[in-house]
Order: sequence, then structure tokens, then C-alpha cells
Amino acid sequence: MMVDEGRPTAHELLSLPRLAPLVPMLYVAWTDGELSANELRALGEAARQQPWLDLRSNVVLARWLDPVLPPSPGELAVVKDHIRRTAEQLSHSSHQSLAELGAQLAQVISGSDGLPAPMPELSRALSQLEQTLGISGREAVRSLVPHAAPAPTHEGPTETTSFDPEALRAVLDRKYPEARQKVRAWLADPAFRYTSTRDTTAYRDQVFKWLKSMADQGLGHIAFPAGDETGADLGAFIAAFETLAFFDLSLVVKAGVHFGLFGASILFLGTEKHHREYLPKVASLELPGCFAMSELGHGSNVRDVETVARYDAESGNFVVHTPSDNARKEWIGNAARHGRMATVFAQLEVGGKALGVHALLVPLRDEAGRLLPGVRIEDCGEKMGLNGVDNGRIWFNHVRVPRENLLDRFGRVDEKGEYTSDIPGDSKRFFTMLGTLVAGRVSVACAALSAAKSGLTIAVRYAELRRQFGPVGAQEVRLLDHQTHQARLLKPLAKTYALDFALEHLVERYVKRTEEDAREVEALAAGLKAYATWHTTAVLQEAREACGGQGYLEANRLPALKADTDVFTTFEGDNTVLMQLVAKGLLTGYRQRFEDDRVFAVLRLLADRATEAVTDRNPFAARRTDSEHLRDGDFQLRVLRYREEDLLASVSRRLRKRLGAGVEAFEAFNQCQEHLLALAHAHVERLVLEQFLKGVAAVQEPGLKTVLGRLCDLYGLSCLESASGWFLEHGLLEGSKAKAIRKEVERLCAEVRPDAVALVDAFGIPDTSLAAPIGLGRLAP
Amino acid sequence: MMVDEGRPTAHELLSLPRLAPLVPMLYVAWTDGELSANELRALGEAARQQPWLDLRSNVVLARWLDPVLPPSPGELAVVKDHIRRTAEQLSHSSHQSLAELGAQLAQVISGSDGLPAPMPELSRALSQLEQTLGISGREAVRSLVPHAAPAPTHEGPTETTSFDPEALRAVLDRKYPEARQKVRAWLADPAFRYTSTRDTTAYRDQVFKWLKSMADQGLGHIAFPAGDETGADLGAFIAAFETLAFFDLSLVVKAGVHFGLFGASILFLGTEKHHREYLPKVASLELPGCFAMSELGHGSNVRDVETVARYDAESGNFVVHTPSDNARKEWIGNAARHGRMATVFAQLEVGGKALGVHALLVPLRDEAGRLLPGVRIEDCGEKMGLNGVDNGRIWFNHVRVPRENLLDRFGRVDEKGEYTSDIPGDSKRFFTMLGTLVAGRVSVACAALSAAKSGLTIAVRYAELRRQFGPVGAQEVRLLDHQTHQARLLKPLAKTYALDFALEHLVERYVKRTEEDAREVEALAAGLKAYATWHTTAVLQEAREACGGQGYLEANRLPALKADTDVFTTFEGDNTVLMQLVAKGLLTGYRQRFEDDRVFAVLRLLADRATEAVTDRNPFAARRTDSEHLRDGDFQLRVLRYREEDLLASVSRRLRKRLGAGVEAFEAFNQCQEHLLALAHAHVERLVLEQFLKGVAAVQEPGLKTVLGRLCDLYGLSCLESASGWFLEHGLLEGSKAKAIRKEVERLCAEVRPDAVALVDAFGIPDTSLAAPIGLGRLAP
Repeated sequence: MMVDEGRPTAHELLSLPRLAPLVPMLYVAWTDGELSANELRALGEAARQQPWLDLRSNVVLARWLDPVLPPSPGELAVVKDHIRRTAEQLSHSSHQSLAELGAQLAQVISGSDGLPAPMPELSRALSQLEQTLGISGREAVRSLVPHAAPAPTHEGPTETTSFDPEALRAVLDRKYPEARQKVRAWLADPAFRYTSTRDTTAYRDQVFKWLKSMADQGLGHIAFPAGDETGADLGAFIAAFETLAFFDLSLVVKAGVHFGLFGASILFLGTEKHHREYLPKVASLELPGCFAMSELGHGSNVRDVETVARYDAESGNFVVHTPSDNARKEWIGNAARHGRMATVFAQLEVGGKALGVHALLVPLRDEAGRLLPGVRIEDCGEKMGLNGVDNGRIWFNHVRVPRENLLDRFGRVDEKGEYTSDIPGDSKRFFTMLGTLVAGRVSVACAALSAAKSGLTIAVRYAELRRQFGPVGAQEVRLLDHQTHQARLLKPLAKTYALDFALEHLVERYVKRTEEDAREVEALAAGLKAYATWHTTAVLQEAREACGGQGYLEANRLPALKADTDVFTTFEGDNTVLMQLVAKGLLTGYRQRFEDDRVFAVLRLLADRATEAVTDRNPFAARRTDSEHLRDGDFQLRVLRYREEDLLASVSRRLRKRLGAGVEAFEAFNQCQEHLLALAHAHVERLVLEQFLKGVAAVQEPGLKTVLGRLCDLYGLSCLESASGWFLEHGLLEGSKAKAIRKEVERLCAEVRPDAVALVDAFGIPDTSLAAPIGLGRLAP
Repeated sequence: MMVDEGRPTAHELLSLPRLAPLVPMLYVAWTDGELSANELRALGEAARQQPWLDLRSNVVLARWLDPVLPPSPGELAVVKDHIRRTAEQLSHSSHQSLAELGAQLAQVISGSDGLPAPMPELSRALSQLEQTLGISGREAVRSLVPHAAPAPTHEGPTETTSFDPEALRAVLDRKYPEARQKVRAWLADPAFRYTSTRDTTAYRDQVFKWLKSMADQGLGHIAFPAGDETGADLGAFIAAFETLAFFDLSLVVKAGVHFGLFGASILFLGTEKHHREYLPKVASLELPGCFAMSELGHGSNVRDVETVARYDAESGNFVVHTPSDNARKEWIGNAARHGRMATVFAQLEVGGKALGVHALLVPLRDEAGRLLPGVRIEDCGEKMGLNGVDNGRIWFNHVRVPRENLLDRFGRVDEKGEYTSDIPGDSKRFFTMLGTLVAGRVSVACAALSAAKSGLTIAVRYAELRRQFGPVGAQEVRLLDHQTHQARLLKPLAKTYALDFALEHLVERYVKRTEEDAREVEALAAGLKAYATWHTTAVLQEAREACGGQGYLEANRLPALKADTDVFTTFEGDNTVLMQLVAKGLLTGYRQRFEDDRVFAVLRLLADRATEAVTDRNPFAARRTDSEHLRDGDFQLRVLRYREEDLLASVSRRLRKRLGAGVEAFEAFNQCQEHLLALAHAHVERLVLEQFLKGVAAVQEPGLKTVLGRLCDLYGLSCLESASGWFLEHGLLEGSKAKAIRKEVERLCAEVRPDAVALVDAFGIPDTSLAAPIGLGRLAP
């Protein structure tokens, strides 16, 4: 039927006026790359049925679409060029399909009169062909004529923010704006610039210099202005510490070891003579100190440390000794290079009696920095991060210290060698001592959150700046406008805000703690330390990945943030161990609720659960899927509280069953360990949401209230979303509701998105501390 | 009533024979630390009602238990000492409670005749007291008399392993034992020892030396023994690469860049003249090469790179040029220091026509290592990891290369300046080029898995060695006997084995790929690369935390493993982008299933789903909770397959709805991005389980089959457990079944536990490559 004259040139194709309306389609047919031989043939046949094609056009068309004779890329480039140049003469709004574009191009070339058919008929015919082709006309048109159909715009500056970031910063600065402002001002000094971190010795010395400068300016006095416990303002110190954690984290940890652990051990475990003699030298950093508790063999189970402090009544000395290599003090910050004295935890022996773990001050180095006799110290060597901190291992070989060096608030030895204490049980005494040091965990949680804020600030600002992918022919889209990018950054942003309010609550509880609620505050600190530091690890991982290769460059700080904070999940109490403590605390409370008045308590508890069954488990509530209901903080909280109560009751049942059947206690707990962790997690999560809700309720300014409310809903619903399995399993959600929650979370992310940059701006991280070029308006270092 | 004579001494207490049976209880009453004042009083009253107490005993007892007069720790220590010394004269098996212990101690002291009451009566009375005290007698006894009641033993060497690790290693070595053995032998050479990594320049040179040594020994020839595509054995090369990844990962990445990317680009994108001229120099490392695709502005969306290669017909040269800073080549491995030539991806322009992205060979440095004119290179600087690789940025300033330097397998320019290609569409041509380079992704997935294996080997062996916490008075328990520790390490271990089988399948598909299934293999590689590298990041994080502080020491290698592999999730294709590719591939296939024969396909699909509805959604299956059913791989697979099909159908519906309503395509996909990722994840997970099941089925040896079957169940059920929300939401599980799965997972962990060490031994990682002291039988470096 057709005469095969070989492949037609682009020139041939374009020279035939009757083919003009088909040109865009004929171009796309080859470049789309998805059409099979059969599809090309089908298109050719359909086209050739158009009554307005003459024989010549028909022949060229058939050859152009011959599957075995594809046009060369050069020919295609000519056709494309022709289309583009012709399209420039068109108005830009109307051609949304290949059909329209073709018809209009033909009109440009030939005028209305020269068209092969009347315009409406032509358009209809072309549309049918376009459908035959089976490709998206609009996309193809945009690819061909880039400026033709504007893509949805995500351009220009960010949509306007709904609130004033400075006002939000004031909310976050809370009770201690002066302490925070003081540290921000210190950090603004040019001396506080990041240094190259490859030379460990130089880095350690730099960190020491920074610390000395902070001490000179009064960092230590923020904690104990009067030099004793009465004037202590640990809330302000923690706020300062938290702000400092926007900068180099080695400095933060070194400050924490010296002021927070060494200083606080003297303050809380020592008595007036220790305060008088040592605290001024701690504040001035004249006496850099260590906190020597962990041993190689006992990092978590510190009650069983093996270092011994034996009282020698004759000389009135304690003899501190490391009985085995397993008992060497391990990971001791400040020990390898700068520390001159250590608070050493050891098993006290007086008059042949073992009295449990106590703390003593043991000098390590003289003023010239030389090790004292009997003290051996080894450098722990390079670590994943925090290499500005000089961690070391310490062995004591019968080192003698005077009787007065015992930190004797909770147990003392008199001149005659008589030991006395107000707390008779060794174990209880030790845990009382430990309890006074809970500030360490509070501070680590706060510092971790600051690091998470730094990471989020970098990643959110970069995501606002960086574009990748987008509609065909239009400008690429900002990363933060990709749905998955919103999910990966904005959910953690909401959790970060939630934790900010929860940690504020913790600090307040800590500052106001009494003997009665000390244990509760310790459990709170343990739970929030674990939850916050795990969050930080997860956030920084997400932030690193969200910044792609840029996130992998040291210049962009995410590597240091990740490496420095990674140990937070396992130091100052391993998170898994801490969460077990939380669970055990809850079980004790639960048992007491029963034991206070067994019958009454059981009845009350059953009544509680019955009430909840009505409010939470009834089918209507489990099925409600409207936005108003889902965004009701009370609903979210009730569900989280139900989970906590349920897990508490069920793990308690499991434990009692095992103990009752004669399973040894450790083994019984071990068999329920995962269950206990789930309980602790549920408890902490409920508590965090509760505090966030309270915090939002207390905010007055409507703009702030709205955006914080959105974050709070995002946090609350994310909690439900991520554990939807549990809630569905227990009938608190139905399938339709779980789905509705997922959608609501997506919607909330989209609503928070325009405020994302302002929300990280509100963290108030000084530019010089943030330092990462991609966090400061650049696409690369 | 009582005469108050002050606190009794320990001596007074111990001197009264009538009190002897009560001594253990009276000691515990004070040391337990949990007894309130009221409880102490209650105990005292109960004790004083015993008919065998005389007045003197009664008075001392009352004073001893007086809440306002606690005994001193020293007094308590004396009592404890007395109990211990007396108990040494007892046989060790019988005293399980304070009551029994007390009665027996009294007998030791006084003999049967001296007892204050007949033995049975005494025991009964004491038991009642013990209940009054409300503490666990057994624990208290163990605390008092450590060797008395043996705790459940977790001591001695690990329980016997159920299989031969060497036999399992042979299974894992699979088709390419020679290539793997060759690399293991190379790594045994003392030259392959880790070096200090702080001096970046020295580290880079060391890595180059290692690479040269490998090249000299024939690493390059494993890939292309005959110097052209015909003899290529990329399966063997990938196996070698995977084994190499047990050692330093900078070396692995440098080898990957040079052999895998630079070499493969010449092999697959070039033609015979390129093979002849360059491949021998690639194999010998005489010509270290780079792969310059990514640009600062385009890391993921590489089709839009901006570097230009314009053909100058007069001189017969291509002029390669970087038009803007955004277009600088970024992150190019081997560029900063050693690379002498680069495969450069650029927009080709011939005769004024834009022909899309092509690859050209561009010399960078002369033989003396000096940069050539027009080439500017900047060091990327320090990175989180992989600092042995010299990444750089490259700018080209109108650099001329001869026409022959175009890698012209898919598009060529003849002497007259005519461009020809067998693939007419620019975009299709580019993706065809990219497709040939899929080996990069396969290799990264395999290398990532090797790193995960290293991390698991270290963490599992350490967990076998290290003890912490345990029953009171007994030896502490191995970490791996803690339930949470099993969950955190053994679930990832199962997934690692699952991925090992899945990657084996990928390599096989890759090696045997044809033009027809090339796209499918590319999607497979994309999905498994993302899944494997995310797994590696998660595993190494878990391993680091599971090793506590030891995991944070560089000497124990986990820091380097983490830092080096962290970029794997975003290089060679960002994981999130790759997963979207996977989802889009599935959608295309789905559309084709419809379009091949619409009516028939719809019917078939409905039929498929109806069948599944019967097997998976019927209440009986959703409720079955027996072990046999849960451990049925077919059941697990069917559920995963159902999820995949359901997500595919639902996201397809959502997309069609949006596109039908006129939403622009990019925007429509963006609105469903999370859904698409869920689909891709479901797809990959199903596929991994499928391959693991096939792999286990193929194993003959019963011991291996059993342990691998357990791991396979653990993997399959972990998948169900972690996504239980989805399955419950869609009625595939009921609550009781979700709970049963959780328990089954715990049980499987406990069953795998005795084999854990053997399972990591089977990875066959050479000790010198593993290097971490805590992975090699020590508790610390």
C-alpha cells in the first residue's frame, strides 16, 4: 500500500502543511519512549484515517511512525526546535493538550484559512488521537514548551508565617531568660568559633580554654552563687547548660563533668567543710575535677562497683584501691589530661565492716599536672565523638586520702573510726546518694534536645532552600514541599516542641523536689532522659539523610551533632536500664495503690477501668473520624492514658503470676522485660503529651496558641499513628479511625509547613553556634 | 510498758539464744529499706506474741525494731557477718526462706535441744512473720548468704550450637566461593591492617596503596577478565566487593568508584576502541578514574544536570563546560587527589541541537598528578566517614576532548558531525545508559549488608561475654540473656539473613538480565539498595547502643562502621527517591495488567482478590493463634502479598482520581508520596521474605534448615509485628492474633539465642578485618 522511501527527514515532515496539527503528537510519539511497536502502528493507522490528510502526508506519516525506522535524535531535535520556535508566537495560557497545541501551531503557520479542516473538527479529531496515544497531554506539552503551562507555584519567598518567632522564643526561654541570654552573649564572642577537630590534643586544650573562659565569666556561679546548697539555683544552671548545648558538645560535656557531676557531688554528698574548701576552686576551674563512678565491669549496675576504700584507723586515712582490672574506673571524663581531683565511688570498709558504696575525694595530679603516686591513668583513646573531652581509665594502688575526704553527708567516720549514718541500709543509702545527682540526667536530656534543635534548624532551612524534582517544564520544587519530606521533618519538629515543654516541667519538679517526691522526680528524669536522647538520635539521623550528601559533610555540622550525641542514649544511665527503672517505679506505685487499702483500691481501679471502657472503648468513640474529634487533646490523652493503665495492669498480672509460681524475681522480670519497656514508653509519652497540652493552654497570644496547638495535635496524633497496632488490638481504634488519623497527620504536616522555618528560628540558636552553611542560607559550604 | 534503754547493740541482739531464729529477719527488716515505721512496729508486735520469747528477748526485740532508733550501719554489718559465718556451717540446699534460715541458724548455735520451741512449730511461726514482713524471703536469703541458693544458671560456655557454622558459611558463600576466598586471603596479608584515621592525607594514600595492591593481585580482572564485556563476570566481582566490605569501607568505596563506576562506564557505555585503550589501565590502576555525574544543583534529579559538552565540528572536539557554580560536579570520588580521568555526564549539543545527557572521558591530571588546563578541583573536605576517599568538586572551563572520548555505545557523532543513536528519545536514551550502571546499586546493597554483619558480629559476641545485673547474690547475667537484648539484636540478625538471600537473588537476576527484564532488575536493585542500607543504618545504631560505652570507642570499630555507611542511604540514589521509583514501576506494571486486556485483567484481578479474601480475611484465619499456623511461611507471605496488592490498588485509585480531576501529575504523585513509599516498602518486604523462604527450602542439611527456618519465621513474623497496625486496620489480623505474634517473636528470639554466636560466626569475617577487641573475646580494648 505504502511506498517505502526510507525514513523521512524532519524537514520533509515539517514542510507538509496538512501534517502541521499533528507535529507535536508525532514528536512525542517517539520521545515519550514508552510506545511499543504496536502502539506506533495503531497511532499511524488512526491518524491516517483523518479525512484532511492528503496522500503525500499519509505516506510521510506512515514512514515517520514506522517502528523499525526510528528517526535520529538529530531529526527529533530539529522537530522540537521547530515546535518551540513556533510556540513562542502563541499566547501562553490556552494550549493544555497536544491536540490544542497542534491546532494552534497549525494556525500560526497557515492562518485560519490554511487549516486542513475547521478548527473545532480538527481539535476533536486530534483529541481522539491523543487518547489513542495514551499519554498525558499536559505533561508532554510542558516538556515541549516549558513556559506554556505554569506549574503549581512553590516559588518566591516562603508563605507568610502566622506568628512572630521572637515571641515564641520568649515562650521557650521561659523562667530563665537571663541565664540563657548570658550564655548566648558568651557564645557571640569570636573566641567561640568551631575549630578543626582532627587534632585531638589541640581540641581538648581548646575545650579547656573555652571552659576556663566560661568559668571566669561566672558559669559556675550560676549554679551555686553562694558557694553552698542554700543559694543553689540549679534551674538556672540547667538553662545555661541547655543553651550552651547549641555550641560544641565536648564543651558541654566537659562543663557537665566538672560543674554538674564533680561540683554537684561535693555540693550534695559533701558537708560544709567540703563546700568551703572546694566549691570556690570548682567555680573558678582552679581544681578541674572528675566523677569516677563507672568501672569496666560495672557501667550500669554501679551498686556493685569493686573499688575499695578501707579505713585505716591508725593513720586516720582511707586506702583507695583497685582490686582487679575489671574494677578500673572507666570512661572518666576530664581524667586523661586535665583532672586534678576525682570524686571516687568505692565500697567503704571500716573496722572490717562492709558499708556499701560511698564517695571520696581523691587527688589525681599535682598543680603541675603530674600524676600522684599510686594513681595510674590511661587515655580511653579516640571515640566516635566528644573528642574534646579527655576520657580516661583510672587505677588506684593503695592510695591514701585523709578521713576528711569522705563526702560524708549520708555516712561519716569519726576520729575513733566509728561509722554512722542516718540511713541504715547500705543499698538505700547508696540510692539516696545517687538520687541527689539526678541533675546530671536532667541536664543530658536538655542538652540532647538542644542538639536535636540544631539538627532540625539545619535540615528545615536547607529543605526550604533546596529544590529537586518538580512538574515537567517548571521550576523544581522545594524539598519541604515534598510530602515525605514534610513527614520526616515536621513530625520530629512537633515532638521536639513537646519535649521542650515536658523538660521544662521536669526542671521545675527537680528544682522544687522534696524528700517525699524525690523518687518520683528521679523516675521522671530517667524516663525523659531516655525518651529525649533516643529522640535526638532519631532526629539527627533523619536530618542527616534529609540533607543528602550535604548532611554528610563535616562543614555542615550534622556529623558532629550525630557523633557527639550518640553516647547520650547510653551514658548517665543506659536508656534501656532507665526505662526499666521507670516501669519498676510505676509497679511500686501500683502495688501501693493496692496495698494502702486492698479492697477499696481494687474496687476503685475496677471502677476506673469501667469508666474508661465507656468513654474510650465504646464503638462510637472508636469510630469517630472527624477532624474536630481527632484534634481534641483530651481524646488523645485519654487514649494514651488508657494504654498506660492497661499495660501497667497487665504486666503486673504477668509478674504476679510468675512470682506466685515460684519463678525467681530477676528471671520473672526478665521474662516481662519487653512488656515493661512498653509500659515505660507509654507512661513517658502520655506525660509528654500532658505537659505539651498544659503548656499550650497557658499561652495567651492567639497566633502562638494556634501554631503550638497544631504542633501538639501533630505530636499527639503521631503517637497514636505510630502505635496504631496496639490501639487497634485493644479496640480503642477502629480501622476507619486509624486511617483518618493517618490522613489528619498528613494534613497537619501541610498546615505546619508554612511555619516550619519560623518554628526553627524560634529556637534562637546563634548563627555562630549553628555554623552550618546549609543552615544559614547557602546550598553548600 | 517497756523500759527504754536506748538502741541495743548487735552484740546484745546476738547474745540472746531465744532471738536466734529471728536474727535473719531482724537484719532484713532494717536493710531492705522499704519498711515504713508502721510496718516495723507491726513486725515487732507480731514477733513479741511468740510464746517462746522471754522478757529480756522481748525488750531487746522491741528496741531493735523501734523506728526512731535505727541501728547504725556498723551494727548491721556485725549482724550480717554473724549470719554469714554461722551459715557457712550449714548445708547449702535447704534454706530458701528467712524462716528456714533462722531456724537452722538457731540449731547450729544451740543444737536441737537448745531451740526455744520444737522445730516445726518454730518454722511455722517464723513463716507467718515473714509474710508479715512482706518481702521476698528467697531473695533476701540470697543477699545474706550468697552461695546459699544457687540462681538460675547462665554460666559456663554458651549452650551447644545446633549446627556447624562452617557449613552455614558455605551456604552463604554460594556461587562465588573462589572470589570470596581470594579476597579473604588478600585481607589476611599483614599489609591490610587498620591505620589511624585522623590524618586524612595519610589515610587516603594508605587506601590508594591498598587498592593498588588489590589491583596488582587481580581485583580488576575478576570483573572483566578478558578486558571486554563478553567475558565479564560481574557476579564474581560483586561477591569480591561484598567480602572486601568486611574490611575498611573507604577502600571499598574507592574500589567501587574506580572499578565499579569508572570502569563499568567504559565497559557499558563505551565501545570497542574504549575497551581496548582504557580497560587494561583501569584493571592495573594505572589510570585512576572518577565518575562525574552528580552536580551541586542535581544530585537526585540527574537528568537535569547542567554541564555542557558542545561539539565543535571544525576541530572535531567536544568542549566540556561548567556553566554555573550550581553545575559544578560535586562529591566526585577519587577527584580530590588521585583521579587522572573522569567519565563526565553532560548535556550533549551537536550542531546546535540539544541531545540530552551523555558521558565523555575527560582527562583531569597528567601523569605527574598536575591538574590539566581548564580543570579546577576543590577538596570536599572532611566528611562524617569514608575519609580515605578523596571526594572533590570539579569545574570545567571550556575543556576540549577529542570526538573519540564520547562513550558512544548509545549515541555517536561521526566525522562529519552527525549524531546518531538507536534510541531516539533523549530521556529514554539517558535512562538506558543509567540502567547499565545498576551494578553500582547492587554493590552498595551488598557492601551495606557486610557492614551490618560486622556490627552484629561485634555486638552479639560482646553480649555473650559481658554480664550486667542478675539475681541477687548470684553471678550477673550475660547481656544476651536479657530479653530486650535478644529482641534488639536477634530480630536484626534474622533480617540480615533474609537480606542475604534476597541480595543473592538480586545478583543472579542482575547477572542474567536481558533487555526485556532490565527495567525490572533496575527496580529490584533500587528497592533492595534502599531496604538494605536503611537496615544497615538501623542495625549499626542498635549494635552501638547494645555495646554501651565500649561501642562508642573507635577501637571497637562500630563508630567507623556507622560513620562510613551512613551515606549509603543517600548516595547511589537517595533511598526515598529510589523507593518512589519502585512504586512507580509497580504502578506501570499494574496499568499494563489492566491495559493488556482490560476486561479480562479486571476480572482476573477481582478473582485474585476474592480468593485472597477467602484465605486471608476470613475470621478463622484472622483469629488462628497457634504456633504451627504462625510459623507457616505461606501464611506470612500471603499476608505480606495481600498488603502489597491492596496498597497498589488503593494508591492507583487515589492517583487516578486526582489525575481525572485535573490535578497536575507531579502534584498528584506528591499528594500520594507517603502512600507510594508504603507500597514500595510492602513490595520489597514481601520479596525479601519470598527469597528467604526459597533459600531455606533449598537447604538440605536438617540442622541448617532448622536454624534458618527459625530465622525466617522470626523475620516474617517481625514484619507482621512491626506493621500490625496496618494488618489490624484491614482485618487481616484480629487483636488476639497480633498478641500471639508478639509472643511468638519473643519465643523465637529465645530459641535462636543459643545459636546466636554461631550465626554470626557463619558470616566468616576474618578476625583481622573485624579487628574490634570486644568482637574478639575481650571485654575492652
